[in-house]
Amino acid sequence: MGHAYQEKFTIPFDFSDVNGNLKLPPFLSKLLDVSGQHSAELNRSDVYVLETYGLVWIVTDYEFDIVRLPRFSENVTIRTEAVSYNKLICHRRFEVMDETGELLMRVESYFALMDLEQRKIVPVPEDLLEPYHSEKVKKIARGAKYKSLEKPSKANYHVRFFDIDMNGHVNNSKYLDWMYDVLGYEFLKTHVPRHIHLKYNREVSPGGDVSSEFEMDGLVSHHQIGSDGQTNAQAIISWRVL
Amino acid sequence: MGHAYQEKFTIPFDFSDVNGNLKLPPFLSKLLDVSGQHSAELNRSDVYVLETYGLVWIVTDYEFDIVRLPRFSENVTIRTEAVSYNKLICHRRFEVMDETGELLMRVESYFALMDLEQRKIVPVPEDLLEPYHSEKVKKIARGAKYKSLEKPSKANYHVRFFDIDMNGHVNNSKYLDWMYDVLGYEFLKTHVPRHIHLKYNREVSPGGDVSSEFEMDGLVSHHQIGSDGQTNAQAIISWRVL
Repeated sequence: MGHAYQEKFTIPFDFSDVNGNLKLPPFLSKLLDVSGQHSAELNRSDVYVLETYGLVWIVTDYEFDIVRLPRFSENVTIRTEAVSYNKLICHRRFEVMDETGELLMRVESYFALMDLEQRKIVPVPEDLLEPYHSEKVKKIARGAKYKSLEKPSKANYHVRFFDIDMNGHVNNSKYLDWMYDVLGYEFLKTHVPRHIHLKYNREVSPGGDVSSEFEMDGLVSHHQIGSDGQTNAQAIISWRVL
Repeated sequence: MGHAYQEKFTIPFDFSDVNGNLKLPPFLSKLLDVSGQHSAELNRSDVYVLETYGLVWIVTDYEFDIVRLPRFSENVTIRTEAVSYNKLICHRRFEVMDETGELLMRVESYFALMDLEQRKIVPVPEDLLEPYHSEKVKKIARGAKYKSLEKPSKANYHVRFFDIDMNGHVNNSKYLDWMYDVLGYEFLKTHVPRHIHLKYNREVSPGGDVSSEFEMDGLVSHHQIGSDGQTNAQAIISWRVL
């Protein structure tokens, strides 16, 4: 078991959708905030990692398993643990519990370290990871089989100023936002996600447009975000009717 | 002096723009959250007001006076006070201070009460306001002279699912988001607001598009959000070069 950290969180109004359910895109930012607190507690803050190693963390994949979405003003506990790592990838788990301790949601996340100057993924330095007490493993299973979309429905989205974060690129949470929005108001008002695989392939540059494409296969939606002829992100979302 | 309330707040990553300055649109939601806490402390929570009176608060105008935008991870204090009211309008002030107590920003806000069934603004019930100890006045000065735009630049924005809040309408903070974004990345990266007048005229309906129009007059931008041939919101923003 890796070192764990937890904090309490009350779902605010602006994290709540029209049905009063948690909006996942801003919650993704909250989870990263929690992992940042965890790392700071272990003297491995983002600033320390950048100044000491010249490295920044980047998320490569998420997997969500959702029993029930938290509701507006609900008090939850967010627990995170650095589970394991191999040469290039670190696996961090988040668990969200309700006030009685029941599990609402589990999020598996996968990170790599990028050398900021060379813009290249580099092997994980052992001493950087030491305080997390996570397990060194050979292989980390992640991701899913993302199919290429044959005849997708799609919409274009302009990258907005406030989509760009302090790292100068489109914030990770926006990709999920675009994937959701293209499904349309009626669908989103009547469905909630059960399971999500989300993969980041390459950054979207500021200023341009992206296309958000999807194909619906029963209650499973397959998503692709693209720009300039490249695929930026992919996802598979299983839904249930509200 | 009306009853006051304050709380501490640390500017999170997702409240920070590419320059590390506070994003005002999500901060508007935070301010409403603080006023909600204030009201709850006085036994005048939104739920109580709705259940007891059948009324909901709506914001009609904001005025921002910005000395300096708070920065990412800065610890600020948000203080709010119910200043005064007349027959239809209540005036609430927010002040944001840095760690040394220096004023960073003052926000004057103006609220009315809407009967939820009749969808009509109604006179403020005295007993609802009593615990705030705000001053009863004849006239409340608010707003500004919003000019009609002659030859505006503009862009259209699609109302997204996550723009709709639990009240079933476009969240107040989105209007400012659209007004900002139309100014373009280069302008926003190199300018910060000094002073903002913002007025809400009528709700944007879910599902449609809005046009965000502006005219620049030196370092002052005049804004209009419109949809279906109606004006939804107006603003005047004075900028300074970063």
